[in-house]
Amino acid sequence: MIDGGIGGETLLFATPGDPIAQVRLPLVMGPVFAALGINAVWVPMHADRKGLHTVLEAIRTIRNFRGITVAIPHKIAVLDMVDDVSDVARAAGAVNLVRREPDGTLFGDMADGAGFVRGLELQGHSVRGASVWLIGAGGGGAAIAAALAEAGVARIAITETDRDRGAHVIERLGRFYPHLVVELTANCEAAVDYAINATPCGLQPDDPPPFDPRPLGDSTVVCDIIMKPRETALLLAARRCGLAVHHGQHMLDAQIPMYLRFFGFPVVDEAAVIAMASRVPA
Amino acid sequence: MIDGGIGGETLLFATPGDPIAQVRLPLVMGPVFAALGINAVWVPMHADRKGLHTVLEAIRTIRNFRGITVAIPHKIAVLDMVDDVSDVARAAGAVNLVRREPDGTLFGDMADGAGFVRGLELQGHSVRGASVWLIGAGGGGAAIAAALAEAGVARIAITETDRDRGAHVIERLGRFYPHLVVELTANCEAAVDYAINATPCGLQPDDPPPFDPRPLGDSTVVCDIIMKPRETALLLAARRCGLAVHHGQHMLDAQIPMYLRFFGFPVVDEAAVIAMASRVPA
Repeated sequence: MIDGGIGGETLLFATPGDPIAQVRLPLVMGPVFAALGINAVWVPMHADRKGLHTVLEAIRTIRNFRGITVAIPHKIAVLDMVDDVSDVARAAGAVNLVRREPDGTLFGDMADGAGFVRGLELQGHSVRGASVWLIGAGGGGAAIAAALAEAGVARIAITETDRDRGAHVIERLGRFYPHLVVELTANCEAAVDYAINATPCGLQPDDPPPFDPRPLGDSTVVCDIIMKPRETALLLAARRCGLAVHHGQHMLDAQIPMYLRFFGFPVVDEAAVIAMASRVPA
Repeated sequence: MIDGGIGGETLLFATPGDPIAQVRLPLVMGPVFAALGINAVWVPMHADRKGLHTVLEAIRTIRNFRGITVAIPHKIAVLDMVDDVSDVARAAGAVNLVRREPDGTLFGDMADGAGFVRGLELQGHSVRGASVWLIGAGGGGAAIAAALAEAGVARIAITETDRDRGAHVIERLGRFYPHLVVELTANCEAAVDYAINATPCGLQPDDPPPFDPRPLGDSTVVCDIIMKPRETALLLAARRCGLAVHHGQHMLDAQIPMYLRFFGFPVVDEAAVIAMASRVPA
């Protein structure tokens, strides 16, 4: 928010989710809005499915409430609750951004995948031609799969305990990216460049790692999309195997400029905004 | 909010109103929450009647959204939109505070009147036995009339352009406070101790004074409930007549400890909290 604090003319943005305590975005957006001189505030909203409906109704009716990012577990449900979505959101089958358009309708987009890929690139990891093992094909996982396909990975193996959901994502990716090799797997994919946890496993303090990284090849980068804790059980186990790790925070940090542009705020210096976001602790 | 900024566990409070730009409470509550170590944020919500319904539904369904204060023009409408209200709110016929109870119901209260009277007292103005001219009997005006009656004023003359609304307030005050002299008047009441503007007139930059203070007696204190601008056209005109003035800000500042207690936060030092609020510019 601006230096003077939140006042009557402050714009409102929110992140609905359930659970909510782990949501880091409000902590990031405070300093970012302040640095850019934007009079706005970003708040968490602890919302189940019924609460989510109310939040969307509030974007339609509260004039200074301009939009949301969507947290676990609502990214898939929101797709059918807005008036229109981007092609990227359609390909991912999920939405993590909603804004009110000037005509009053709600428009959804999905930046998780693009944010994940951009975050990898900014950490020096190339994805073109890579082989990927993706664990979890919910809203976030599906978006990451679509963005990886868009960025030119050669092969994606997906582990998803919900077989219908997994098959649905495979079918959709095959349709949008016919040259991509994409398949379901129940086993560890040892010979991949990236092994990515896209499940909520790791959010709770006593969660076990979502998979055992020990069989993975030496050159595999183990990635998590969990932001809090920063060092999940998975990443700690991967480090013990001597593997490179990629923290969940990068996916969010790389999305901050995307969020700002989506909501109509110009971003002159993407790197400066991401650097500012990355300085906020998990 | 807390020093660390707004995070996933931050509680949410709001002030719905229309217009909204003048609402000062979020500016006050930021520093107050920070000083008391309360992890909470207060935001403005620009809401018409439809938006107000959504805000109340959001208090029911968003778990970290604990309640609101109600701004112009919703204080009367909210009375019938909550599940239960205090006796004070019933006497005033208006609500400016709503919280979610542990059982999920919404409870409304009205602190405008008590805040106005406490604000007068803290500025050294006694109301017991006083004679008052009140201009405006909407939600705020009705609450002030009831609190003045409760505090022992001798007589209230009310000017209200909406005759039905005025008659309704007179009838209700007569019923709750049978010894009070209360009447409608279309004319300036020159021989009063307090002349109080409780209309929205003064919120807009080019609003004229809601009444002409020139006929008032030398000892009349001219009071406004408009907070922004601090120096309304009415108070400037009163000063030019050499009359004492009482700013709208005092009514809000004196209510801050009442709000905190209503939402379950203990207040050890009322004076310190009011002093903190009063340091925030209008």
